[in-house]
Order: sequence, then C-alpha cells, then structure tokens
Amino acid sequence: MTVQVIAWSPSGAVRIVDQRALPEAQIERDLESAEAVADAIRTLQVRGAPLIGIAAAMGLVAGTRGLRGAPRDAFLARVGELTLLLGDTRPTAVDLRWALDRMTRAAAATPGDGGAIWEGLHAAATAILEEERAMCRRIGEAGLPLLPDGANVLTHCNAGALATGGIGTALAPIYLAHAAGRKVHVYVGETRPVLQGARLTAWELTRAGVPCTVIADAAAGSLLRQARIDLVIVGADRIAANGDFANKIGTYSLAVLASHHGVPFYCAAPSSTIDPAMRDGAGIPIELRSPDEVKTMAGRAVAPPEAEALNPAFDVTPARYVTGYVTDRGLVQPPFGADP
Amino acid sequence: MTVQVIAWSPSGAVRIVDQRALPEAQIERDLESAEAVADAIRTLQVRGAPLIGIAAAMGLVAGTRGLRGAPRDAFLARVGELTLLLGDTRPTAVDLRWALDRMTRAAAATPGDGGAIWEGLHAAATAILEEERAMCRRIGEAGLPLLPDGANVLTHCNAGALATGGIGTALAPIYLAHAAGRKVHVYVGETRPVLQGARLTAWELTRAGVPCTVIADAAAGSLLRQARIDLVIVGADRIAANGDFANKIGTYSLAVLASHHGVPFYCAAPSSTIDPAMRDGAGIPIELRSPDEVKTMAGRAVAPPEAEALNPAFDVTPARYVTGYVTDRGLVQPPFGADP
Repeated sequence: MTVQVIAWSPSGAVRIVDQRALPEAQIERDLESAEAVADAIRTLQVRGAPLIGIAAAMGLVAGTRGLRGAPRDAFLARVGELTLLLGDTRPTAVDLRWALDRMTRAAAATPGDGGAIWEGLHAAATAILEEERAMCRRIGEAGLPLLPDGANVLTHCNAGALATGGIGTALAPIYLAHAAGRKVHVYVGETRPVLQGARLTAWELTRAGVPCTVIADAAAGSLLRQARIDLVIVGADRIAANGDFANKIGTYSLAVLASHHGVPFYCAAPSSTIDPAMRDGAGIPIELRSPDEVKTMAGRAVAPPEAEALNPAFDVTPARYVTGYVTDRGLVQPPFGADP
Repeated sequence: MTVQVIAWSPSGAVRIVDQRALPEAQIERDLESAEAVADAIRTLQVRGAPLIGIAAAMGLVAGTRGLRGAPRDAFLARVGELTLLLGDTRPTAVDLRWALDRMTRAAAATPGDGGAIWEGLHAAATAILEEERAMCRRIGEAGLPLLPDGANVLTHCNAGALATGGIGTALAPIYLAHAAGRKVHVYVGETRPVLQGARLTAWELTRAGVPCTVIADAAAGSLLRQARIDLVIVGADRIAANGDFANKIGTYSLAVLASHHGVPFYCAAPSSTIDPAMRDGAGIPIELRSPDEVKTMAGRAVAPPEAEALNPAFDVTPARYVTGYVTDRGLVQPPFGADP
C-alpha cells in the first residue's frame, strides 16, 4: 500500500527514492558511498527524521564495503571518519545521531577485523531499518483510537512512508484507520519552502487512496476557526526530555492555533526521536537552510534578488501545547527518561 | 520612490503594471476596454483592494470612450452593464463596490448625453485615484508613530504601492518612517499561494531601499515567539462595522499568533474599505480561487494531480484581535458608521 523508500541494492548500495523529484517523477538512486548518502541527506533527496537515521546507518555500511579486508584499527578509524561526515549533514533531527551512535557501539562491540565488523554493521543497520518499520506500525496502533470514522485531520510536512522505513509516524494512524474502513480526511499543509506536504504527503496519501486536501500553510488558522479540523497530528525531529519538540517550521504556529481553538494536537514519533539528554527545547539546534529555498520555486525567482530571506527549517513547540505523544510505546506523556 | 502602478494612457486606456510578471519583469499593459480591465482584475494582473476599486472606476471610463456620441439612456444602460461586469470580478473587497457605486452615482448626477456623462465619469475616476493616493499618505501619517527607530515589522501579502494608487496602506507608515530616517526592518510573509509578499512587497520595499526579509508564512509564529517582531501591520479587503475584517488568507493566523505573544496587530486601510452595511465579519463573502494556484508553481506541479486543494483567498479576523485601525481618519476604533 505504502511506498518503500529505502532498501539495499543488490550490490550493497543504499537504494533510495529521490524525494526532490516527487510528485512529478519517481526516481530511484543507488548511493554507493557514505559521501553520496551524506550528500543525499543534505540536499533532501532523503529526508524525514527517522529515514535520515536509517540512511546514515546504511550509508556507513555501503561506504565501508571496500574495506572488508582491512585490519581492525584501520576499519574502525574509517568508521569514525564516516560517522562524523554523516552526523554533520543535518543538525536538528536526533534520530541521525541516535542511529550513528548505535552503529559506533555495534562496531566497537564486534570482535575481529574489517570483515567481521562490517558484518556487524550490516546487521545493525538492517536491524535499525526493520525496527523503525515495526515502530511505525506500533505508532499507528497507538494513534488509531484518535481517529474515529469521519475524522478530519490536519498534518504538516511529511511524516509518512517517505519519512520513515515503514508506514510513517503522523500518517501511520491514518493509514491504519483507512485500512480499517474508517473515513478519514486529511488536510495537508503544503509546507513551504520545500513543500513536503504538497509534494510528498499528498502524493503518498493519494497513492494509498486516502482522501486529502492540500492547503496553503496560512489557511490552517481559518480552517481551525471554522471547526473543520478535529485533530492535528505531526511528526518530530527531536523531542526533549520535558516534551518540547522540534519539527518542520510552522509546527509551532499550528500548535498555538490548535490550542487557541481547543483542537487536540498530537506529536507522533518513534522512541529514537526522544533525546533524554536534552532537558528542554531551548537547546535543540535549529538548522538554517539556504535563503534560496524561499526565494526561488521550481527554478523561478519568486522574490527580488536584493531581498533577504530567512529560512529556519524547524521550530520548537513547547510541551504545554501537546495533547499527547503517539509513540511505539503507546500514547505517552513527558518527562521522557533514557528508556521511555 | 514608490512605483506608480496605474495611470491613464495617452489614448485614455487604463495603463497598469502586470503584477503577475513581478519580480522577474516589469510589464506595462494598456487595458483598452472594461472587459480587459475585468479580466486583469480576475487574473490578478491588478490586485489589492484599493487598486481594484480604482481600476474598475477607470475601466468604466476607458470602456465607454467609444460611446461619447450616444444618447443619455443608451450611455447609462451601457454604464450599468459594465458596472455589473466589473463588480462581479472579485467578491471580497468592498472598495470595488464602493468605487463602482460612486461612479454610478456620478453618472446619474451628471446631466446631458453620453459626452457629458463620460466627462463626469472621467472626473470621478480621476478623483478616486487622487483621493486614494492622498488617503494612503494620511494612513502613513497616522501609522508613523507606531514605528520608532529600530522597529521590526511583520506584514503579509501586499498592501503597498502595488495595491493602491499611492504609497500603500500597511506599507505607508513604513515608507514614511524610512523617509524620516528611521531604521525599520520589514519581515514579509511570502503569502502563498500567489506569493504577493515575496513577489510584490519585497520588490517594492527593496526598490525603495527599505530593508526586508522574506519568510515562509509558517515561520511567523517562531519569529513572534523569539520576540523578533515588534508589531504586525496588514491591509484589509473589507472592514465590517464592528471591526471584523477580511484580508489575505493567513491574516487570521497572524492575528491569533500576535495576540498570543502580546505583539500589537494593526489593520491599515482607507475609509473606502469600511463597509458600514456589513454588521460583522460573518457576512463577508470569501472568494474561493482555483485549486491550481496551490497545486502548481511556475507551471510545475507541486502536488499530485489526484490530490484536492482548497484555496480560500481570504480569511476574516475578528475585531478583538486588532490593536488599532490605521486609516486616513487617524488611528480609529470600531464601531464604524457610514461616515467613520
């Protein structure tokens, strides 16, 4: 039903769907090296907090295929270098760091030389992919009771199959409700500047047969005022221990607007998105991306060249606006410890 | 300093800057008939509540140039037809109706045949243009005290020179503050789907040397939370007697967010935007425009063809969110009577 966006290629490269080309074209790419994976993450060929964690782990494996004959020290040194490279691609999502930390621990814990450690890394990356897929399903099950027949849901950005190894996070309950025969209508904020809502969420929902309506992000307030939205559900790039969370720019506005109109607001994410070391949202680094993402669209200038543009990719939503956190451990509340 | 966006051509046509081509190209068009003016209004070649009122009035004049030899009844009948045509172009802005009502009254009040009535209409349309220009300046003067040196202002859509015959409504105080040597920085919401903020407001501000920063609409909440905005000032398409007002989609969200963060929120408009016959905002008709404005960008699909899109061009902001109304009569408060 949903699209599979990441897999091993027959030769052991990381096979992805290049998300920049959607919805116009579905292009698969085999990323042969860790450098290619890092570039794909930076340029949003692969995006979504859970998916970039998976991609980085798999990229570490693909990038060390050629070193299977290396002695232990040389292999581990290269793993260290590539981990830094992959970890530096994007600052906000913690899944990336979580996945790379897990890979580093797997490498250190695997005895032997390059060949053996590589096998251990391959197993760890595959486990991360499979576990994230399973977590998506459990998130879906945890969120399913929030979506009665006839529910009108608003989501933002893409927290679906294209953002994860599985059926998504925010979209997972929607897919399960749809599969259960419930009528669910999804309003999709287009999510400027990169339009992940219009380009990606609407694409995967329509492919799955889930009715959806794209709106300009600025139209959400008006729909909430008209009581056309029963609940808001979004993903997360990092959740602090106190429940503050970073997500795509515009999430905070939706949270305030939902709260103002008495509409429940949910954050859906796998446990890997929780950063217990981050006390609250104030410390979450917010990626500033190129002003060109705002000033151009489909290659055309939409602002004069002399104008500045500010392009924070994320914002932080304080926990007080969140009705509940839909996770693979169920519907939970902060504080989130090391083992939530 | 600011651009002149509407004028009589030497032959008596309505000369406009085609706003669809900005910021890439500055294209002037001479609209020779009322039908051409109606089409220009519908397709957003000419937009902005005050400007479409002016354009309609001038279009009525341009469209009756050929009838100056007609007898009174035939001329007035044609004026009636063209008034209906021009009035039906866009439903939300009241300036359009206000201008056409004034033209209808001018025609009826002018004695004589076609030639004499046409002269009366030409004088009335020119008066509307000049009065709106003067009103812009008075709006600027009324709003100037709101902008101390160093002010950071957020605006939405385009309520500037490109939306009026003069220096704008929401932008008028900004132009005057800039001319007075005050440092004012303008954050411009890009205003999807048609991007009047990025394409038009940023264009006219940079041309005038006013520093500005374009943001995705969804970034406004985050900037307000970070206390980077001192005040919000927007235009209006129609203000009801109780102060509720319609403006570009997204205005309501900004009003709620400004209120939530204790940031003053101003509505700037000429008296012609006040509709004393409209008791409150619930009755203001909201134009639904084509889903294609949301689903495509510069000719490229940004959403899958199967996805629906909802494209309300305006929303209504209740008066309780408005700190003050910046008008040509000064900084005023509702209720607004027939002669505010």
